[in-house]
Amino acid sequence: MYIPTYEDMLEAHERIKPHIRQTPVRESDYLNQLTGAKLFFKCENFQEPGAFKVRGASNAVFGLDEEQAKLGVATHSSGNHASCLSYAAMKRGIPCNVVMPKTAPQAKKDTVARYGGKITECEPSTTSREETFAKVQAETGGDFVHPYNDPRVIAGQGTCARELVEQTGGLDMVVAPIGGGGMISGTCLTLATLAPETQVIAAEPEQADDAYRSFKAGHIIADDAPKTVADGLLVPLKDLTWHFVSNHVTEIYTASDAEIIDAMKLIWKHVRVVAEASSAVPLAIILKNKDAFADKRVGVILTGGNVDLDKLPWMAG
Amino acid sequence: MYIPTYEDMLEAHERIKPHIRQTPVRESDYLNQLTGAKLFFKCENFQEPGAFKVRGASNAVFGLDEEQAKLGVATHSSGNHASCLSYAAMKRGIPCNVVMPKTAPQAKKDTVARYGGKITECEPSTTSREETFAKVQAETGGDFVHPYNDPRVIAGQGTCARELVEQTGGLDMVVAPIGGGGMISGTCLTLATLAPETQVIAAEPEQADDAYRSFKAGHIIADDAPKTVADGLLVPLKDLTWHFVSNHVTEIYTASDAEIIDAMKLIWKHVRVVAEASSAVPLAIILKNKDAFADKRVGVILTGGNVDLDKLPWMAG
Repeated sequence: MYIPTYEDMLEAHERIKPHIRQTPVRESDYLNQLTGAKLFFKCENFQEPGAFKVRGASNAVFGLDEEQAKLGVATHSSGNHASCLSYAAMKRGIPCNVVMPKTAPQAKKDTVARYGGKITECEPSTTSREETFAKVQAETGGDFVHPYNDPRVIAGQGTCARELVEQTGGLDMVVAPIGGGGMISGTCLTLATLAPETQVIAAEPEQADDAYRSFKAGHIIADDAPKTVADGLLVPLKDLTWHFVSNHVTEIYTASDAEIIDAMKLIWKHVRVVAEASSAVPLAIILKNKDAFADKRVGVILTGGNVDLDKLPWMAG
Repeated sequence: MYIPTYEDMLEAHERIKPHIRQTPVRESDYLNQLTGAKLFFKCENFQEPGAFKVRGASNAVFGLDEEQAKLGVATHSSGNHASCLSYAAMKRGIPCNVVMPKTAPQAKKDTVARYGGKITECEPSTTSREETFAKVQAETGGDFVHPYNDPRVIAGQGTCARELVEQTGGLDMVVAPIGGGGMISGTCLTLATLAPETQVIAAEPEQADDAYRSFKAGHIIADDAPKTVADGLLVPLKDLTWHFVSNHVTEIYTASDAEIIDAMKLIWKHVRVVAEASSAVPLAIILKNKDAFADKRVGVILTGGNVDLDKLPWMAG
C-alpha cells in the first residue's frame, strides 16, 4: 500500500490546474449567525462535472504515460466518480469504460455518456459488478481508477484543501462529508503538512454511519447496502482511506436524514448554490453540535451539485 | 431630472464596496456548447440579501448626510428592493420604513423584518399604496429611495457592470433582465464610458413586455398588473430609466414563461446556483435567438436568488 505524500499532492495540483476550476468560497452572514461559527463554503459543486471528484480523476488520467493512456481508464461507480472520470478522459481524449448497475438513474448514465464514457451494465450486486468489471478491464486494458482507495485520487482530492486554506487565510477546522473517505483523506494529507493546527472533522449520515463506528472501534466496519438521502456517502472505508481517517481525523459526527435535508435547504436558501444532499451533512452536524464550532473559522466542503431537480427530497413524492 | 454620470458610479462603488460582495463570475462549458456563445454569469444572487439591488440601496443609504440618516429611509416595494434597502439601513444602523401590500408573501415580509425594516401594510392597489406611503413618509421623515427611478440607485446598480468587465477582461454584450430598468440603466451608464463597444441587451418576459413595446414605440408604455413567473419584472419604466433604455440599449428580446422556466432549470443544473425566474430571462432569450449571440463573449447578470424552495415553478402545484 503506497501512502500518498504532500509532494504527491503538490504535483497533482500542478498537473490538474489547467483541467479543473479553482472554485470560489462563499460566506453567508445569516448562517454565521445561525451557527455561531464563521463558515467558509468551498464550492466544489462548481466544477464543470459538478463534483470535487474531478480533481482525483484528473490527476489519475493526466498522470498516465502515453502507452497506458492509449488504453484509457476504467472504473465501477454509479455516482460522481463515473462522470468525473469520463470528463477527465474526454479532456485528454482517451477511452473511459464505466461499469454501472442497470438500476442506476438514467440521468447518471446520460451524464457519463455525454462525456464520452462507455457504459457496461451489470446486475445491482457486488458479485456481478466485480465479474463484469474484470471482463471489461481484461478486454480494454483500461487502467483501473478506484473512486477513492487510490493514492492518485487521494492526492488529487487534497488539492481542494490547499486552495481553501489559501483562499481563507487559515482555518480552525475543515468539515467534509465522509463516504469512502477520499475527500477526507486528501484533506488530512494536505493539512497535516500545510496547516497541522487545523482540525479535520468528518460528517456522516446516521443511516450510513460505518465510518463513525469504524472510528470508534479502531478498525474498518463495512455495512451492507445502507440507505440515506445522502446517496454519495454509501460506500465503506478501505485500507488507504482508513489510514488517513484513523491517524488524522479529529472527530466524526453524524446527522439524521431529516437534519441533512434541513441543512440542504438552508444552503440553497442562504448560500444560494445547488448542492446535493451529501454536501449538506457538514452543515447538519455543525448545527447539531454548535458548541464544538462556536467562534471557530470553519471550512465546509460542498462536495457536489448533481441533483435531480424534479425530485427534491423536501418535496412530497 | 438629474441623470447620473460615470463619476457618480465610481463614487458609488467606493462608497458601497465595504458593504456589498464582489460577486464571482461563473462559466459552464455545457451552456456554452448549448448556446454557441461564451457566457459569463455574474452571480448577484450571491449578495447577502440575495439581489443586485443591495448596490443601489447601499449607495442611497450610505450617501445620506448625518441629519437625514437619523430619520432613515422609506420605500414601497414587495420585492428585493424592500429587503435590500432594509439590509443597507441595518448596516448603517438607521430606520427603514417599507410600505407593502398586505397580500405580499409572508416570506418577503419575514426577510424585511429580519433586517429590521418596519412594515406598514396597504391594500393591494396603487391608490392605497400611495396614500399609505405619503402618510408613513410624513410621520417618519424618511428619505424616499425609489426602487429604480432614482439617480443614486442607478449609479449603484452600475457598479455591477464595472466589476463584470474587469473580471472578464472585456465583453461583446451584456444581457440583463428588464422590469423598471434600474439594472439595465446602470449597465448602460457604466458601459457607455468604460466599454462603449459592448452592447447592452435587455431581456423581458413576453407576459410583461411593456419595455419591449415602449422601445419599439419610442415612448413609455405602462401595463396594468401584468402576470409572469418572472415576478421581479412587473413594474414599468419611468423617466430616468427610459432615458437610458431609449438612448443606450441595443435591443430588447422577450421570452415566454415556459422558456423562462426551462432556462431557470438549466441555470440551476449547469451553473449550479439558485437564481430566481427573473434572472433566467437573459438565458431564455439567448437560447431563442442563438444567431444574435453566436461566438460572442456575453455577460449575463443573474440578478437575484430569492426563491420559495417549496413552490418551484416547474413542480406541479
